[in-house]
Amino acid sequence: MSTQRTISFPSQELIDAVGPIPENLKAVLWDLENDPETPLEDIDIAVLPYMANPRTLENLRKAPNVTVVQTQTTGFDGMIDLIGDRADINTASGVHAAATAEMALGLAIASLRGFPQSVRDQQQGRWNPQQWPGLADRTVGLVGVGGIGEEIRKRLEPFEVNLLRFGSTARTDEHGEVFATSELAARAPEIEVLILIVPLNDSTRHLVDAQLLAKLPDGATVINVARGPVVDTDAIVAEVASGRLNMASDVFDPEPLPAGHPLWQHPNALVIPHNGGNTKAFFPRMVKLLKKQVQAWAAANDGENLVHRS
Amino acid sequence: MSTQRTISFPSQELIDAVGPIPENLKAVLWDLENDPETPLEDIDIAVLPYMANPRTLENLRKAPNVTVVQTQTTGFDGMIDLIGDRADINTASGVHAAATAEMALGLAIASLRGFPQSVRDQQQGRWNPQQWPGLADRTVGLVGVGGIGEEIRKRLEPFEVNLLRFGSTARTDEHGEVFATSELAARAPEIEVLILIVPLNDSTRHLVDAQLLAKLPDGATVINVARGPVVDTDAIVAEVASGRLNMASDVFDPEPLPAGHPLWQHPNALVIPHNGGNTKAFFPRMVKLLKKQVQAWAAANDGENLVHRS
Repeated sequence: MSTQRTISFPSQELIDAVGPIPENLKAVLWDLENDPETPLEDIDIAVLPYMANPRTLENLRKAPNVTVVQTQTTGFDGMIDLIGDRADINTASGVHAAATAEMALGLAIASLRGFPQSVRDQQQGRWNPQQWPGLADRTVGLVGVGGIGEEIRKRLEPFEVNLLRFGSTARTDEHGEVFATSELAARAPEIEVLILIVPLNDSTRHLVDAQLLAKLPDGATVINVARGPVVDTDAIVAEVASGRLNMASDVFDPEPLPAGHPLWQHPNALVIPHNGGNTKAFFPRMVKLLKKQVQAWAAANDGENLVHRS
Repeated sequence: MSTQRTISFPSQELIDAVGPIPENLKAVLWDLENDPETPLEDIDIAVLPYMANPRTLENLRKAPNVTVVQTQTTGFDGMIDLIGDRADINTASGVHAAATAEMALGLAIASLRGFPQSVRDQQQGRWNPQQWPGLADRTVGLVGVGGIGEEIRKRLEPFEVNLLRFGSTARTDEHGEVFATSELAARAPEIEVLILIVPLNDSTRHLVDAQLLAKLPDGATVINVARGPVVDTDAIVAEVASGRLNMASDVFDPEPLPAGHPLWQHPNALVIPHNGGNTKAFFPRMVKLLKKQVQAWAAANDGENLVHRS
């Protein structure tokens, strides 16, 4: 630990918020687009921008001595191919979990209590009380039992629902039974609220297709806080257009949802423009994680959320 | 227990759902408006309609031998004056708690995640991602620690908020400190989300007035699932119109909110038309309570939720 290592941060705001760092580390500004204030060869640890397009990320390779990469996202799609040959990769797993789980619960309650209809009634000054299904006593299928899935489970627990959880394999954990996702179709006729929070991969692409949707009961609501392509868009558009199913979604395929897309126009589809993880909680939580990471790196330890070792 | 007692139910649907009752009880239909199928003198126990106006309720006095009254509401305003001289009063406390608590959480998340804005954007086919405050990490003031207040507390617990609870008197319970409502003004500068679930009475009418609202921080959100007059409408209209505060409310003063009322037009006010307790969970839960009550009454015991003894 005799030599000083250099950490690049993507914004001065982040450098300021993380504050003083141990003496054997040095903070520099590098947003991966403009040249850093120090030679690229000096950078040992790179904190990535929150939302960066793939072309920007490729600039990482211009820093030849980076051995640790820290994302500000939970996902790290493509990062191993990009830089995994020579850098460890740490994610911001946990930083976004609360906001995304909160989004899932909000979408469920808003849809099941008719909030979109109330907003439209409000525009016309129309007092229009009516019974909506509500979340209590509903059978909820939660597909995905990873970090965010667990945060959704915790938040659902006090709402007096009948919860069916689905994971990649059938198992039992401290909260009860987890069904295999392969059983989803068989259980679908019971599921009144389907919440999706699986990573997108070959086995989850179009997991929710026309066949599965057809098995959900009339009036069921599909809530997607995973990735758009987990649902077959054409199939859900057909069910929403017919009025048989409802959807409330933070993610779409394609995304952004283009102008003129049929989902914009259906009153039983609630379209949220991928605001899932983006709240005022994000920045302070990211700073808190980075403070811990900096201490770990100063002590030559691994940071938290190490998902790949070079 | 040698004689048979007669229970009136306000709908045939309820009689059918409660199902067979013990032999020493007899079910008859009486909605308090039309004549029952049995002489009024025969009725011993009266189950009231869910929503009845005061004039309808006065018909209760036409049944001279009623000794037990069962409401379908949590509140029982006016019931003691009406019939308390000769009848015990049981409420449906608990039946509505889940739905109302769920409404409070839904209003909080919807408002703090900008759902009303998203619904309006959706009408224009506009993809408009942005950062909203979110509920996680907010300081929430929950005013009211009764039955529904406790249900709100339970549901808030996993959402990673800083919760300040206020009750009629300062105390400590198993969930921590409860501040006296008299301290609300002093704590108001911290409170980013104010949730109201107090009964309406002389000490809570206009509890949230211009002085209190002025102490809330910029951007705070007021959520009312109690009764409209707990908030001074003119005062909140001024704060909402200026854009300094937000509100999301299920109850209003006056209620229904009349056509042309200024609250309809403000994008930072979410108006829900008193749908709080009215979900699909209501009827099955009411039936479940009535089944228990019928067993208790058949055994000459008090039913649950006895709030007044004649």
